[in-house]
Amino acid sequence: MELTQAPRRARELGIVVGSRETGPWNAITDVAGVRVGHTTLVEGDDIRTGVTAIVPDQLDHRRALPAGLFVGNGHGKMVGSTQLAELGEIETPALLTATLSTFRVADALVSHMLRLPGRESVQSVNPIVAETNDGYLSDIRARPITAEHVHAALESASAGLPAEGSVGAGTGTGALGFKGGIGTASRRFTGGTGTASSEGAVTVGVLVQSNFSGLLRVLGVPILGRPAEQTGNSCVIVVATDGRFDARQLSRLARRAVFAMGRVGADFAGGSGDYAIAFSTAAPDGPPLPEAELEPAFASVLEAVEEALLNSLFMATTTTGFGGHTKHAVSHEQVLRALRESPGRGDRGHRDRGDS
Amino acid sequence: MELTQAPRRARELGIVVGSRETGPWNAITDVAGVRVGHTTLVEGDDIRTGVTAIVPDQLDHRRALPAGLFVGNGHGKMVGSTQLAELGEIETPALLTATLSTFRVADALVSHMLRLPGRESVQSVNPIVAETNDGYLSDIRARPITAEHVHAALESASAGLPAEGSVGAGTGTGALGFKGGIGTASRRFTGGTGTASSEGAVTVGVLVQSNFSGLLRVLGVPILGRPAEQTGNSCVIVVATDGRFDARQLSRLARRAVFAMGRVGADFAGGSGDYAIAFSTAAPDGPPLPEAELEPAFASVLEAVEEALLNSLFMATTTTGFGGHTKHAVSHEQVLRALRESPGRGDRGHRDRGDS
Amino acid sequence: MELTQAPRRARELGIVVGSRETGPWNAITDVAGVRVGHTTLVEGDDIRTGVTAIVPDQLDHRRALPAGLFVGNGHGKMVGSTQLAELGEIETPALLTATLSTFRVADALVSHMLRLPGRESVQSVNPIVAETNDGYLSDIRARPITAEHVHAALESASAGLPAEGSVGAGTGTGALGFKGGIGTASRRFTGGTGTASSEGAVTVGVLVQSNFSGLLRVLGVPILGRPAEQTGNSCVIVVATDGRFDARQLSRLARRAVFAMGRVGADFAGGSGDYAIAFSTAAPDGPPLPEAELEPAFASVLEAVEEALLNSLFMATTTTGFGGHTKHAVSHEQVLRALRESPGRGDRGHRDRGDS
Amino acid sequence: MELTQAPRRARELGIVVGSRETGPWNAITDVAGVRVGHTTLVEGDDIRTGVTAIVPDQLDHRRALPAGLFVGNGHGKMVGSTQLAELGEIETPALLTATLSTFRVADALVSHMLRLPGRESVQSVNPIVAETNDGYLSDIRARPITAEHVHAALESASAGLPAEGSVGAGTGTGALGFKGGIGTASRRFTGGTGTASSEGAVTVGVLVQSNFSGLLRVLGVPILGRPAEQTGNSCVIVVATDGRFDARQLSRLARRAVFAMGRVGADFAGGSGDYAIAFSTAAPDGPPLPEAELEPAFASVLEAVEEALLNSLFMATTTTGFGGHTKHAVSHEQVLRALRESPGRGDRGHRDRGDS
Repeated sequence: MELTQAPRRARELGIVVGSRETGPWNAITDVAGVRVGHTTLVEGDDIRTGVTAIVPDQLDHRRALPAGLFVGNGHGKMVGSTQLAELGEIETPALLTATLSTFRVADALVSHMLRLPGRESVQSVNPIVAETNDGYLSDIRARPITAEHVHAALESASAGLPAEGSVGAGTGTGALGFKGGIGTASRRFTGGTGTASSEGAVTVGVLVQSNFSGLLRVLGVPILGRPAEQTGNSCVIVVATDGRFDARQLSRLARRAVFAMGRVGADFAGGSGDYAIAFSTAAPDGPPLPEAELEPAFASVLEAVEEALLNSLFMATTTTGFGGHTKHAVSHEQVLRALRESPGRGDRGHRDRGDS
Repeated sequence: MELTQAPRRARELGIVVGSRETGPWNAITDVAGVRVGHTTLVEGDDIRTGVTAIVPDQLDHRRALPAGLFVGNGHGKMVGSTQLAELGEIETPALLTATLSTFRVADALVSHMLRLPGRESVQSVNPIVAETNDGYLSDIRARPITAEHVHAALESASAGLPAEGSVGAGTGTGALGFKGGIGTASRRFTGGTGTASSEGAVTVGVLVQSNFSGLLRVLGVPILGRPAEQTGNSCVIVVATDGRFDARQLSRLARRAVFAMGRVGADFAGGSGDYAIAFSTAAPDGPPLPEAELEPAFASVLEAVEEALLNSLFMATTTTGFGGHTKHAVSHEQVLRALRESPGRGDRGHRDRGDS
Repeated sequence: MELTQAPRRARELGIVVGSRETGPWNAITDVAGVRVGHTTLVEGDDIRTGVTAIVPDQLDHRRALPAGLFVGNGHGKMVGSTQLAELGEIETPALLTATLSTFRVADALVSHMLRLPGRESVQSVNPIVAETNDGYLSDIRARPITAEHVHAALESASAGLPAEGSVGAGTGTGALGFKGGIGTASRRFTGGTGTASSEGAVTVGVLVQSNFSGLLRVLGVPILGRPAEQTGNSCVIVVATDGRFDARQLSRLARRAVFAMGRVGADFAGGSGDYAIAFSTAAPDGPPLPEAELEPAFASVLEAVEEALLNSLFMATTTTGFGGHTKHAVSHEQVLRALRESPGRGDRGHRDRGDS
Repeated sequence: MELTQAPRRARELGIVVGSRETGPWNAITDVAGVRVGHTTLVEGDDIRTGVTAIVPDQLDHRRALPAGLFVGNGHGKMVGSTQLAELGEIETPALLTATLSTFRVADALVSHMLRLPGRESVQSVNPIVAETNDGYLSDIRARPITAEHVHAALESASAGLPAEGSVGAGTGTGALGFKGGIGTASRRFTGGTGTASSEGAVTVGVLVQSNFSGLLRVLGVPILGRPAEQTGNSCVIVVATDGRFDARQLSRLARRAVFAMGRVGADFAGGSGDYAIAFSTAAPDGPPLPEAELEPAFASVLEAVEEALLNSLFMATTTTGFGGHTKHAVSHEQVLRALRESPGRGDRGHRDRGDS
């Protein structure tokens, strides 16, 4: 018997991570100028893959944005990492895709950048492409993703609430014993000054591509899934903020993004490529925010990544693909029942010293 | 009204983390040759501090042991880090103490090493000393720790179950809203070959010095403590194993040790110096264990660190110190009641692909 | 007037770097099992580019070889770096090419690996591809390199003395004010035990792709070239050894490879992607060589890289390409005259403590 | 026969490194607010050691200064490294001393900081102390350096030309086959905007503690010394600038400082702890300088470190110490003769693309 539940975000199920305020969409797109696009490939019995693009519009008029990276477990094919770390910046949108398609996606991103108006004499591009292995549900060796798929993801990128679950680079992924996928969330806090957004509020938005092993925990309550059959998985996390943080500070944010995987039960297996990239859209018209402003940003990352990972699971749909393999969506009913039976869960709220 | 509960380890309270087998002591000393010693300083109203020594006997006849390091958040005064990383080894016992005493402890450790028989012409020592800030309960600026205290910790180091809770370098620490301290735990697994211990079993033991902020979670159940009043805290984790892992592999183990802090509710605040050191006692008489052997070791680290952190809290005793400040031990009764009210907790068990 | 000199290796000109013994070919191919192949693209007026492949035969029967990386200046698009660092290994040949072709070369290398016998079910490949910007002499935006070119470089890889100078990935490069290209050299020393080669001798071979700015120095004597007109250059260095060094030790070797660039006058400009990869072909049938064995290996790397960089220049031929730009080969006569006028040069010989 | 030459700086001997303008003192003290102090211990036959303090006055009114670190070879006992890297700053003066005295010097620096007015409630200090092994000329195991010696170095720190050669932390060191010691140099360039100094000029000053093996090269000309008898040496380099660079940029500067060691013939032996720290005194009242401003700063670091290393040798005096060991100062006459015999040296001048 198959689940026929409608996809729901965590908050639609009444599941709230932490006590911090979200942005209007509770999504990475709450950071002004950040758009998300997906190309989803579902072809025949064997292809369940795709591309997801995170596009900061600020790159239209600035050569690069400050960025930091954390490699939680470097068993992955992250493209662009050394230049990102050296210069502390990204100069292209960030793309997510399937392991064996990484390099043709990167090549297509190079093509895209070279074609942009005003870049007719550019001779160097550092594309940012991360990946995860969707080979359990998709015929990954077929490498079906083409430059057109990449361009479609970039062109279709839009503001507002991004599609989540079994879409884009999350079409064929699985996490914590269930069908995984794309998830997003955001948090806002005040106190920062001189940020890109008005009124001094700082927004932190995250997007995840979930594909890793462990035992799912929803607000701390374990939800038994199926053991991972797949090796070489990964979790890629993209953090965007309009807070004027510099590259070093952003790398500290990126670290917390990977740390947050533990909150939903990641087992940090050695074959998983666990990466986080954090970038800032703030105009570089002053010194970076003081280090103390990082504390609410750290807490925001921890909360937002936990919720985005839950969204990636709750929004995913049961998928059958390559070799007849199936990954089942987690049953919302099972989760809600478990939460009801663990009333201690209600008082959840990661409080940090920065607020009270 | 003050708690008068007797200190208890997690398992004495019926709280079991994961499903893996422990060593005989469920302690870092289950790794053959590893001894632990404490000097505890409780003087007058203001001094609540100490030194903890982790002493691998293998250093008696080998110049150094393979070791790896992970800096989760480098806001700390870890001594010996760059040489540890460059050469992939430790050449002294590892000492833990209070922030402002770090360097006199390191100096005393140098004295200790120079005095050892056979080292009469040694001209260089790379002492390993890590620290945490116990300035809320202890007059840290007084720096009361002397070379004699250091030598006492080293000389008293013994096999068997180490003292836990408010002892040694954990005398004045606090974690997750409660009194913190020293905790330890271990795990064993089979499958490895060529290890120091007989029968091919590999032991992973950990010792923690807990002193960080966040919301305590016991097997996922939140236990409300008091907000941290203190800044500049740290969590130092020492991992020992008799598995023949090399420095690179040990640094991967160390990374999981810091990741495990999230399992008990760490908020990974920016002012915390979160470090893990992992070393191997195995004789270097063959190639390192294959990478696949790391999977059960990773899972063992995650479980053992979680349990050691719980032990550090459950074994701690309410302490009043500097400035009349008090850190309360977590109430076992409060924890057990919360667990009873969350029956979903029973099926806990971090399973990884590497076993079952 | 144009130079019409025949390409000559440094030693053919009587220029000897250091006092250490070379391997039979004075080339990276002196490490048994290491082959080198080039595809050189010279098409019309605008295309001066190519691919160079370093192929360790040991990968035919072993999944991976121990490897280390050093990023001297990360302004480059090195593919495969994070997994190389995490696992301490390479699992593919190393390819060198032009910046904007990096990802299609990486994609072709993935295709090549997937097609190898016995890899029919492999779902993950970490290709190693490094690059440099040859956009001054070649129409880099045209990205003329195809999968066929990559396969040709891999298939044609052979033992013996590799072609040097304006070939393969060095076809369109320039260094230190002159035409640059591919160069190679090697050194041998005894004292190691348990190495892949017989008789306990250890061979260290290097191959460079030279493309960076500075003032050429030959055995310390400055040779005035033309200022660099090009930005975004790089120097990629591949070090192979049959010494049984582990990943950490190999990363120490890689560091010295970049340090050696200073010996020929590199100015370590910020836009240069300066990378070194070191790998070992030794069978993993014992513990790694003791750290002391690294000293002669360090000295060998310093000497061999210096000589390989000289070879890359002395073997290069004056090249005119994209936009009518020309890079002139350094005049051997000019170099030899300068050396004659600086008789102090004769006593060159970098001696280290590790030998006599 | 012993040399009785008077100490001379490189420029007093007519030896000029590069073509860039120096500051008024050609010293690290050309960076406004940076003072240098030494305590020199020459006691009896066996003690030849000391302490050198680099004191930025800006720390009187700011908690910390932006700073970056590069570990060229981590075989050393650098204190303060992980917090420097995490927060991208130094909060104390930088001290240099002898290996086995490192920790008592660090402890004394902690005492000094705690005593400063306005710091009565400070509970955490991250002292910056680096070291080198002077055990060939000094009875390093005696550890004669006391807190008073440290305070004397800090208190005596002054502007103007620092003492060089066999003073302070360079009293007992040796480099490249000769007596080593302390050296300093500086460079200035225009083009930067918004710097701490007026008129937009940026100053880069360096101070070195030379103690490493290799074959001395003066402007490329080899000068034969004696092989190193000592192991565990180090080269510590401190770079100060008034350019408003951030921590990431400063770490790029620090990298070039270590690279520059190759210019005087360093062999980068495995036992040497080669470290560079770079800090900026500029007020944090705007965004960091653009990355392009780093190019002249890189070139300045390369030139200044090369010259400072030469100064450390040319200013050193022949020293006999522990065990009757002697390190001979390099003969100025020998150097000048070698340079005369290599007329090609005259056109020295490391030019980079950033200037012309």
